[in-house]
Amino acid sequence: MGRVTERRKVLRIRDGAVSSRPDTLVAEEPLEIRLNGKPLAITMRTPGDDFALAAGFLVSEGVLATAADLRNIVYCAGATGEGGANTYNVVDVKTAPGVVIPDITLERNVYTTSSCGLCGKASLDAVRTTARHPIADTPPLRVEPELLASLPDRLRASQRVFDRTGGLHAAALFDERGELLDVREDVGRHNAVDKLVGRALQRGDLPLSRTVLLVSGRASFELAQKAVMAGIPMLAAVSAPSSLAVDLAAETGLTLVGFLRGSSMNVYAGEERIAVRAAAAGA
Amino acid sequence: MGRVTERRKVLRIRDGAVSSRPDTLVAEEPLEIRLNGKPLAITMRTPGDDFALAAGFLVSEGVLATAADLRNIVYCAGATGEGGANTYNVVDVKTAPGVVIPDITLERNVYTTSSCGLCGKASLDAVRTTARHPIADTPPLRVEPELLASLPDRLRASQRVFDRTGGLHAAALFDERGELLDVREDVGRHNAVDKLVGRALQRGDLPLSRTVLLVSGRASFELAQKAVMAGIPMLAAVSAPSSLAVDLAAETGLTLVGFLRGSSMNVYAGEERIAVRAAAAGA
Repeated sequence: MGRVTERRKVLRIRDGAVSSRPDTLVAEEPLEIRLNGKPLAITMRTPGDDFALAAGFLVSEGVLATAADLRNIVYCAGATGEGGANTYNVVDVKTAPGVVIPDITLERNVYTTSSCGLCGKASLDAVRTTARHPIADTPPLRVEPELLASLPDRLRASQRVFDRTGGLHAAALFDERGELLDVREDVGRHNAVDKLVGRALQRGDLPLSRTVLLVSGRASFELAQKAVMAGIPMLAAVSAPSSLAVDLAAETGLTLVGFLRGSSMNVYAGEERIAVRAAAAGA
Repeated sequence: MGRVTERRKVLRIRDGAVSSRPDTLVAEEPLEIRLNGKPLAITMRTPGDDFALAAGFLVSEGVLATAADLRNIVYCAGATGEGGANTYNVVDVKTAPGVVIPDITLERNVYTTSSCGLCGKASLDAVRTTARHPIADTPPLRVEPELLASLPDRLRASQRVFDRTGGLHAAALFDERGELLDVREDVGRHNAVDKLVGRALQRGDLPLSRTVLLVSGRASFELAQKAVMAGIPMLAAVSAPSSLAVDLAAETGLTLVGFLRGSSMNVYAGEERIAVRAAAAGA
């Protein structure tokens, strides 16, 4: 479909010198995700991997947990734009017979309880109770700091569209030896993770219990939630985590690494998976 | 309320050396926004400026356009957490008598039409038809590239929480002489802009027709939409814009500047507001 990037004319200004030239931009378009024919959510995303995005989104929402839960995903034939052509911006996910659809609100991360109007604790509780893949890596994943430190460079080397546009967030999945399993890019950070998780579900690889998820930016509650829902035991971010992401990691057993830069990093939760003693001894 | 940052214990690893110490994190908590008592949306945000956030969100959604549209904003008294204390995570916005509430869906940027299932063009059309402050800067705002180039440093100098946590997005409003009018920080980029716009509405400053909005990261469709809805004629981003942000700017007359770094920048739309001739002559 070739819509990952688009060209636009741009006026470049460099030290007072002005020139006009075409520029490559990351494409952004709305995607409507339907569940068994019923509109569920709309996300602004970079086109491509739309079926994976929809599947991964539904893993995060607790609808799908394994490939067996998924019957099929199709572009809606009636979703046509100007000239009657399909916009490829509406996908319908059909679940397998017997899959119970939880009560999903249209807004993500909407957690209210009768006792608590709305608070961080309710958000944590909701993830813990809907998670269908408790983090259970047996034997526990153990990763050396040196290996973790090498992952951002490996991610960057595999980011193709970013080099042309500078406009994409990236998420990558590594195995415990640091081998890159998959990388996805999107204008939305959460979409990049959904695309990774969705492809893993389609391949039959959920739960991702022996992998490390690396994200190019910050680690928010939402990204930590997506890791937990996919059964990923370790989330590493190049930048800072939020308080609620750290709290969720601590509650669910997720290892959360932030500020992964050069040979340094901060471990906010689940430090038992970081092989620090070996590192100190080997230094 | 002092919840902008929180402290957590962290394991620091630097070149193999391991230490444990407290770290300052940016706080993230859910905020439910109610409109005249009815739940409308939930966003994960950094606590603080919650009334401004709610007001700005409703400007973006086309509910509020001026201070006169707003009756009041309160924290919901019944929204209590453990121990019965108010969580300060639910706000109710009451509109002034006579304000017509548009048909808002729970999901932001949800634009469907009968002719187009869902496409970028429909998203653009929806903003154009709901915008209550067409960009009408008379005489047109004119800003020299040198002045624009100085804004990121001014923004950075005023970012207080970022220095401690590294975890915040920032948005700032400048006047046409480059004077900083306001700056807001939040774990969510869109929240930072909503807080800026909401405070301006509360001050009676909408439309913001003689201002420049600077954002610390990328320029997505959503951020361009927020600028347009507040009547801001110029949006400048330190990083890349998306295709749909550029298309929206071109359709609505918004000046969109990207990759604002050092003395260089790219102008994607509305170049008539950039005083390039003077810059070239003065070089």
